Amino acid sequence: MMKTTITTLFNTQYPVVQGGMIWVSGWRLASAVSNAGGLGLIGAGSMYPEVLREHIQKCKKATDKPFGVNVPMLYPDIEQIMDIIVEEGVKIVFTSAGNPKTWTQFLKAKGITVVHVVSSVKFALKAEAAGVDAVVCEGFEAGGHNGREETTTFTLIPMVKEKVRIPVIAAGGIGSGRGMLAAMVLGADGVQIGSRFAATEESSAHANFKQTIVDVKDGDTHLTLKELAPVRLVKNKFYQQVEELYQNNPTIEDLKELLGRARAKRGMFEGDLADGELEIGQIAGIIHEIKPAKTVLKDIITEYNAVKESL
Amino acid sequence: MMKTTITTLFNTQYPVVQGGMIWVSGWRLASAVSNAGGLGLIGAGSMYPEVLREHIQKCKKATDKPFGVNVPMLYPDIEQIMDIIVEEGVKIVFTSAGNPKTWTQFLKAKGITVVHVVSSVKFALKAEAAGVDAVVCEGFEAGGHNGREETTTFTLIPMVKEKVRIPVIAAGGIGSGRGMLAAMVLGADGVQIGSRFAATEESSAHANFKQTIVDVKDGDTHLTLKELAPVRLVKNKFYQQVEELYQNNPTIEDLKELLGRARAKRGMFEGDLADGELEIGQIAGIIHEIKPAKTVLKDIITEYNAVKESL
Repeated sequence: MMKTTITTLFNTQYPVVQGGMIWVSGWRLASAVSNAGGLGLIGAGSMYPEVLREHIQKCKKATDKPFGVNVPMLYPDIEQIMDIIVEEGVKIVFTSAGNPKTWTQFLKAKGITVVHVVSSVKFALKAEAAGVDAVVCEGFEAGGHNGREETTTFTLIPMVKEKVRIPVIAAGGIGSGRGMLAAMVLGADGVQIGSRFAATEESSAHANFKQTIVDVKDGDTHLTLKELAPVRLVKNKFYQQVEELYQNNPTIEDLKELLGRARAKRGMFEGDLADGELEIGQIAGIIHEIKPAKTVLKDIITEYNAVKESL
Repeated sequence: MMKTTITTLFNTQYPVVQGGMIWVSGWRLASAVSNAGGLGLIGAGSMYPEVLREHIQKCKKATDKPFGVNVPMLYPDIEQIMDIIVEEGVKIVFTSAGNPKTWTQFLKAKGITVVHVVSSVKFALKAEAAGVDAVVCEGFEAGGHNGREETTTFTLIPMVKEKVRIPVIAAGGIGSGRGMLAAMVLGADGVQIGSRFAATEESSAHANFKQTIVDVKDGDTHLTLKELAPVRLVKNKFYQQVEELYQNNPTIEDLKELLGRARAKRGMFEGDLADGELEIGQIAGIIHEIKPAKTVLKDIITEYNAVKESL
């Protein structure tokens, strides 16, 4: 048991949230993390509304512990998604990619705890003003979509903590007990962990993608496609094509055309390592094996306690 | 007193190194940091050889504590610089921007402790193989020149620590006792601090530049000029000109022409905030006042101990 404002807010054993990643975080991963004492999140960003409903229902059957749903607000069926979340009695929602004003009061009025993902002090303050219960502050090293300011976890956490009063969850670069403790030392009240949970047995990622997380070393990922929405990707064949296109001064339309549709699904869910989009964080360099989610969380907490004791 | 492999290596009271920054780190700053119990570094990168000799001589008079010199190895007068370092009896040299093989054995043969600055695991291993005594691992958030891999401090430190046996000094994003402790938790044996020491009374930076460090907020710096040598700059008028040039698919020659000569001197030493190059790290967002170097170090150690106790 470890008490922080985040364990109190979510009623979890540990202040550890599993990132609600597209194509990776279904009910199996979310319920495994929640059952192990963290907060599991279902990633709605890659689900049709009725698919999300099915995942929520299965998650409720698989755990009696708190879990949540991560919702990118740019989602086309956003209204339907929010209605399903309310109908199914989800108690915790993480919102991202959009204005926190749009949905926070709607969700709060239904008794739902709302957390918003930000990558700068400015948006942390906006989220606080919109009435969210906590913010996830995600640094430049995180996999997938990322902030335009390119502020790293090491500097973002203390800068946000100086300005906001609500609890802060650090994200980006955290994959071990040392990382968790370092984030707490910098001022975080809890942590969100993505890549490390993507490489678990319960993750719905394709086996090829999980193995790529294990194989990736430092310098193997890069933040690109900044003119669309900045995203950290593995430097695979698709990434090389993007870089080649950049040599020819592309328009935004050129970039959109190359990106096409369903690249992320192709890479992370279907396992096409050459032509798919592979969203992995820099910390994958210290991820060396695929483990059950419960073991991941247990190892993190064990290391956290051991390093803390050693100080 | 705080004992780590770094305090033993340098024979200092604290495992804190002041970054050897161009135009900022003369004998006044270096001796003030050394007298306060850290390791002060003279930044040779902006000094003609005889100017460096003068700074070393003045530093020896101003402190009887250990101090060192930081030498970017691409320096045109590098042989003269190394001869002066040996002649003046400097005991500690930090090398950067070049191959650690070139000078390490020469310096070691003279009894000099050698530390090399790297930004990736690959170069940390090369430095270790070249026989250096320690590495500085500098993350993406650091001000000034920076690695091509864009690996952040939060992820670089644990990735390097897994692979090398020599002591690791964390740099980039550290400006407080919390930051120092977080770096040590991630596995660092010591820390190097730049921007925070640039905004001290003893720094030779122009008053305008010092005030800019105090004024800068999150998102106000950016890593640019990657085709020449990646450098983190404040987004001032000169930076805007660079960004405008990028809209026109510039050649490397175009970029070199815009950069011209002595931009860094103009900005940081002469205080031209519009047309100068202003090298500042992301952590400047938590730097709010210009203080004596001794106070900076004392405040960092006090906070470090307080946060450690509170865990």
